[in-house]
Amino acid sequence: MPEPAGIEPTAPEPGGGEPGGPAWNGWEPGAAPALSARTRRALARLLGATEDTPSVPVGEVRLPPSALLAGTRRRFVELLGAEHVRTDRAARLAHAGGRSYLDLIRLRDGDASGAPDAVLTPTADEIPAVLAACVDTDTAVVPYGGGTSVVGGVSGAHRGHAAVVALDLSRLNRLLALDETAQTATLGAGMRGPDVERALAHRGYTLGHFPQSYRYSTLGGWVATRSAGQASTGYGRIDELVHALRCVTPTGELRLGRGPASAAGPDLLALAVGSEGTLGVITEATLAVRRVPPQRRYEGWSLPDLPAGLAALRELAQRLGPGLAPDVCRLSDPDETRSTFLLSGSLPTRLARGYLAARGRNPGCLAIFGWEGEPDQVAFRHRAATRTLRAHGGLPLGAAAGRSWLHGRFAAPNLRDTLLDHGLLVETLETAADFGALPRLHAQVRRSLRDSLGRVMVLSHVSHLYRTGASLYVTVLAARDRTDPIGQWTAAKRAVTETILAAGGTLTHHHAVGTDHRDFLGTEIGTAGLSVLRAAKAALDPTGIMNPGTLIPPAS
Amino acid sequence: MPEPAGIEPTAPEPGGGEPGGPAWNGWEPGAAPALSARTRRALARLLGATEDTPSVPVGEVRLPPSALLAGTRRRFVELLGAEHVRTDRAARLAHAGGRSYLDLIRLRDGDASGAPDAVLTPTADEIPAVLAACVDTDTAVVPYGGGTSVVGGVSGAHRGHAAVVALDLSRLNRLLALDETAQTATLGAGMRGPDVERALAHRGYTLGHFPQSYRYSTLGGWVATRSAGQASTGYGRIDELVHALRCVTPTGELRLGRGPASAAGPDLLALAVGSEGTLGVITEATLAVRRVPPQRRYEGWSLPDLPAGLAALRELAQRLGPGLAPDVCRLSDPDETRSTFLLSGSLPTRLARGYLAARGRNPGCLAIFGWEGEPDQVAFRHRAATRTLRAHGGLPLGAAAGRSWLHGRFAAPNLRDTLLDHGLLVETLETAADFGALPRLHAQVRRSLRDSLGRVMVLSHVSHLYRTGASLYVTVLAARDRTDPIGQWTAAKRAVTETILAAGGTLTHHHAVGTDHRDFLGTEIGTAGLSVLRAAKAALDPTGIMNPGTLIPPAS
Repeated sequence: MPEPAGIEPTAPEPGGGEPGGPAWNGWEPGAAPALSARTRRALARLLGATEDTPSVPVGEVRLPPSALLAGTRRRFVELLGAEHVRTDRAARLAHAGGRSYLDLIRLRDGDASGAPDAVLTPTADEIPAVLAACVDTDTAVVPYGGGTSVVGGVSGAHRGHAAVVALDLSRLNRLLALDETAQTATLGAGMRGPDVERALAHRGYTLGHFPQSYRYSTLGGWVATRSAGQASTGYGRIDELVHALRCVTPTGELRLGRGPASAAGPDLLALAVGSEGTLGVITEATLAVRRVPPQRRYEGWSLPDLPAGLAALRELAQRLGPGLAPDVCRLSDPDETRSTFLLSGSLPTRLARGYLAARGRNPGCLAIFGWEGEPDQVAFRHRAATRTLRAHGGLPLGAAAGRSWLHGRFAAPNLRDTLLDHGLLVETLETAADFGALPRLHAQVRRSLRDSLGRVMVLSHVSHLYRTGASLYVTVLAARDRTDPIGQWTAAKRAVTETILAAGGTLTHHHAVGTDHRDFLGTEIGTAGLSVLRAAKAALDPTGIMNPGTLIPPAS
Repeated sequence: MPEPAGIEPTAPEPGGGEPGGPAWNGWEPGAAPALSARTRRALARLLGATEDTPSVPVGEVRLPPSALLAGTRRRFVELLGAEHVRTDRAARLAHAGGRSYLDLIRLRDGDASGAPDAVLTPTADEIPAVLAACVDTDTAVVPYGGGTSVVGGVSGAHRGHAAVVALDLSRLNRLLALDETAQTATLGAGMRGPDVERALAHRGYTLGHFPQSYRYSTLGGWVATRSAGQASTGYGRIDELVHALRCVTPTGELRLGRGPASAAGPDLLALAVGSEGTLGVITEATLAVRRVPPQRRYEGWSLPDLPAGLAALRELAQRLGPGLAPDVCRLSDPDETRSTFLLSGSLPTRLARGYLAARGRNPGCLAIFGWEGEPDQVAFRHRAATRTLRAHGGLPLGAAAGRSWLHGRFAAPNLRDTLLDHGLLVETLETAADFGALPRLHAQVRRSLRDSLGRVMVLSHVSHLYRTGASLYVTVLAARDRTDPIGQWTAAKRAVTETILAAGGTLTHHHAVGTDHRDFLGTEIGTAGLSVLRAAKAALDPTGIMNPGTLIPPAS
């Protein structure tokens, strides 16, 4: 039976990926910005030669033949219809990996060996039967949302099973319920960020969850990976927003969450959140939403240096606290601040630089603060934060800098595509720690990356404030080792991860574990913690088909 | 070897319990208030005859002989020293049960069959060896903090094991660390509420966790039962305050929590919190603390009726939200309001009543709001709440009513002792639900209790605000069935629990599961949820010695 028209695109997408999805080998199709000659010269000066390193064309990618047996395929087709069981090259390539540096380097080099054998697009109701069929046929299942994992969370390697399918949740894309009294929304797991906000905005609400991957990442992915959005200081992490969820496992469905809070034993919702597809498929979640705030106020500030900036953030977190502190708080370190001035030619950036120079100030630490809510609350909170920031030597840079940040907040991955074309290693990593540990953590992460990579730009910011600490987010740029780029980053990543854990940081604040962090999870949760995770998995997924190799290290 | 002097009290305590602990058969020794003749007449009129029903004297309590074998005892003595292995009557009786109505009714009737065979008081370092000895000797372990469970969480029934010991954590009573940069405190599990606040106040900090059981309950108990304090709207539930903990299990120690937040897989901390001693012994926890607030402002308000009061609370929770809403929010329903006016002869109460009468208002719904923090924040938040409350018909009753509530906030269990002496059934129950479900839940709980108990006083308040809902706390008074008081309440409790679950409420908002709610846990978390809990227990406690019979229903 031929595939129905409209499912298999007759002409390839501009980015070679799925309709509406990211490019097969990068981020937004056709959106990678050109570098100015000045910026290219600066990168060459700072990092060494930046030769051109274009991706192979999509037609040259090496894709292994699908290992799906005919009988297994037939069973899926009976369950879902042929149009929802795809083994074509385009579908498999579009699901061949996440968006980490390592994933992209492999794809750009033509290596799609991580592609699944088939891509299934079931409805929510069909998922229990699909999982039953997967158990029967020893088919591994990779629950697939936006495919934006930056930790190897959606790699389709077989890992000892007969075949592997990507369970693409794009049809679970509806706002299922909006309770305007409780202010909760029940959302399908496959809704992308813009789908979520569009559906809610139509009714006057917002979730307020804006990770950098917002354009492509999905609600189910956020929940499965314990995501934190850029406004998490004010709106809360996804863990805090989720009130209930449904998770289909090979042995039955978890339906968790009842009312706003409970003491009915351990919070099992917290076991499903962050399970990264290893226990089951999160099909929907009910989350706290808010009325769209009538006022949004975003500003740039300059703090004299990192210690002053950290002291200011700590005071915002502790003297004001969640609810009173700004909803968005981001503090760039001096290197990230300088690189913002270097890489951004925007008018607000140039004006800010001129303003600081006129006052005899170094660039110092650029910071962004945002307040959202009713005007009187925003005014009071803004006054309180302003007092704190001024007390720590802060200078306001105005609303234009805030608008500029808001405008560009999801665009960094497009710049990464450009830099990948120019011979660079570009990757991010992140952690969180108590306030007392942050300065040393910051210094040691920088030193570790310099030790591993030599000439390097390490750009850091502190964000996502909590009462006791904050996250540290780090962007790394270096000249790519052309002979062994994978080995170059793998070694540096291992060293910096060990550094983070030794300095008291968490393995990951919002990128999740995936395969990249998996072998360090034992350091974070201990042997007893691993045994609990393995026991939960054995209870829900006894044959181990759910996203195997991810999150949970194999028992040694 | 004789017990060293000073361990076995030479003269019994006034309450017959342990030094500094609650009375063996009630709450604060000697603190039960006398009822006025007017109140007694009112209770008789409302509920029927209230005959005197004094407790048996402590000397007449029937305690089964200790089942601890001599060899097992010897092993404990080798590990802990004889003074920390008590099998004497006083120690066993003081650990014979929690403080639920059913526990107290049994004890007051002379039935201490739930007493453990021995009471161990190890240090934290000794606990792993104690658990190993318990595994070897098939001795069940009841981790014991303040003994204030109101859901049968510390009953020492053998439940198929050779013997049972109460593991009294009273020696784990120190502030172990205070990190003034992160504002976290590491506290021993055995610290009682006043110990915690005293140790922190000495350094200028507060935890802000004030459950009604505060006087006797312990940090470890709060964490093990997912406690919520009366100021949880502002300070957060214990789940939100805990950043790290250590939990000794029979197969190893769980050390969980790293920094302020993480995405390193599921939050296993949330599996230890609320585990009610069934997975292991929580020995210490690190919690977020705050500077002692320079200002505290508490006020009484009167709302015209329950719908208006609930609408006001919902607006505080959603338009202001945590951080801006009052730290304490409590709204009594009309019956609780009337009974406050009836049972309290305090000056503020009488003044409030007169003030309302002078304005031609019914008592309506009494409410208490509290704000804590820096003066400018308290002032702003107070203004915002005042606008909301006035918009819903609220009338302020002034600071005296707030002070009166603060003063008496931990005293209700003393009044219960009095009422138990006067032939009454007195028990509390609680749940939480989304705002939309609360009115029906309130009505149905009242109807269920009336249907079960006939003439009854059902006094309810809504407190513990969240963005999406709130808790509902219910006090029940009825004439006690003298022939079968246990059966009378067991049947009513079963019916009202089914009613709560059917109406969308959680099984328990902060009392925990214990044995009383155990057989309903499957309704809350489902078959798949139960299988996860059982798998976690099997991994950490393979011989099932940890608080057996509690929390997790037996597999059928």
